[in-house]
Amino acid sequence: MTAKIRLYVEHPLGPGQSVPLSRDQAHYLFGVMRQGVGDAVALFNGRDGEWLATVAEAGKRGGTLVLVEQSRALQMPPDLWLVFAPIKKARTDFIVEKAAEMGARRILPVQTEFTNAGRIQRDRLQAHAVEAAEQCGGTFVPQVDDLIRLDRLIDGWDTARQVMFCDEALADAPPKPAFGAAGHDGAPWAILIGPEGGFSDRERARLHKPDHTHPVQLGPRILRADTAAVAAMTLWQQRFGDWA
Amino acid sequence: MTAKIRLYVEHPLGPGQSVPLSRDQAHYLFGVMRQGVGDAVALFNGRDGEWLATVAEAGKRGGTLVLVEQSRALQMPPDLWLVFAPIKKARTDFIVEKAAEMGARRILPVQTEFTNAGRIQRDRLQAHAVEAAEQCGGTFVPQVDDLIRLDRLIDGWDTARQVMFCDEALADAPPKPAFGAAGHDGAPWAILIGPEGGFSDRERARLHKPDHTHPVQLGPRILRADTAAVAAMTLWQQRFGDWA
Repeated sequence: MTAKIRLYVEHPLGPGQSVPLSRDQAHYLFGVMRQGVGDAVALFNGRDGEWLATVAEAGKRGGTLVLVEQSRALQMPPDLWLVFAPIKKARTDFIVEKAAEMGARRILPVQTEFTNAGRIQRDRLQAHAVEAAEQCGGTFVPQVDDLIRLDRLIDGWDTARQVMFCDEALADAPPKPAFGAAGHDGAPWAILIGPEGGFSDRERARLHKPDHTHPVQLGPRILRADTAAVAAMTLWQQRFGDWA
Repeated sequence: MTAKIRLYVEHPLGPGQSVPLSRDQAHYLFGVMRQGVGDAVALFNGRDGEWLATVAEAGKRGGTLVLVEQSRALQMPPDLWLVFAPIKKARTDFIVEKAAEMGARRILPVQTEFTNAGRIQRDRLQAHAVEAAEQCGGTFVPQVDDLIRLDRLIDGWDTARQVMFCDEALADAPPKPAFGAAGHDGAPWAILIGPEGGFSDRERARLHKPDHTHPVQLGPRILRADTAAVAAMTLWQQRFGDWA
């Protein structure tokens, strides 16, 4: 029995458990995807791995799934945060989707001096992260935080967490190896992607100073923030993360 | 004198040259961007590097720019092609934009057995590549080819060009180093991104067989085609290309 559909649910998942469906989920499963009693669905909730379930009751306003067995254990992504300055709506959605696909554990939108966005729709962004996890076969969903000012985030930063920050001002400089001398020691990391207008001089000075920050340069062309997010996560995952 | 605006033109660029503007370019420069006589504009045509120009005549239906000096030499990206199966319109546009930003030299949309798209709008995609080059500070614009069937592309393939192909069927396999034993010898390469439905068994068999093809695996999650394109180009540029 193989499930063609993966669904994120809030409900705990365990042996013999039955899971009630919301109206929206029932509409999607039975109305849109034409599933019915006896059909198989894969469920995950971000905590208990992936479970194979079958449809026990199917209605217009709800339904019930019964769990059969665990099909995958929970696979936590490495302890990587993606910190980024929200840009235009479609590109912000895209960054959140990509962070979930690429295996970030937490997504932190920040307001920098040159960020236009004064607010974000956290719930909408969280829904994008859920959808990306459903698509990419992940068993974990990264949390999307509320918007926070970059200087406040820096003020409260735990310096045990290394920071890879992508600084477009480095694009004309001669190539340097990414990550400097950072070791492969399982330390927690964050990737910080600046706003389209770049960091301010004041921000750049604060970011370049501490030992736990690592400016990196992503090639000789200036990348858009969404491209930079995927490229930086690729380099990190390949060097320190679960692609290695 | 610094230019705030970068513009792609078809016209040859050289010392003392004057460049006539089309109606659309005049509208953009003088109407939208509020430039006027004496203002500086950076021009590139994909062949002659980047030139600093000043506005000599500004009208509603046209205008003239006069070249001052070359501000950057032509910087060719490495000999990397991006071959991909077109998907939904917005994501196809996105892949072309990303290929230009990431430094592909040529972009080839292919039709695979599981590709939905039977046709593409080549001119629209080429315009996206131009816009991306304007944005990212590149002096080169990759050519977007017409749609071609994958089996025909393989039939006529020059085997001197290595192929990195991204095979989502490998996502559950244990991690392997990307690129196998391929050397850093300046060989031409192509990156091949499969369609959302994956390659067919027949295609996969043809792709796995030859010596010049290198299956790679982009982490334990299944990436969307647009994410895979950026991630694969990142790994390639870092290992063989102009990020190294």
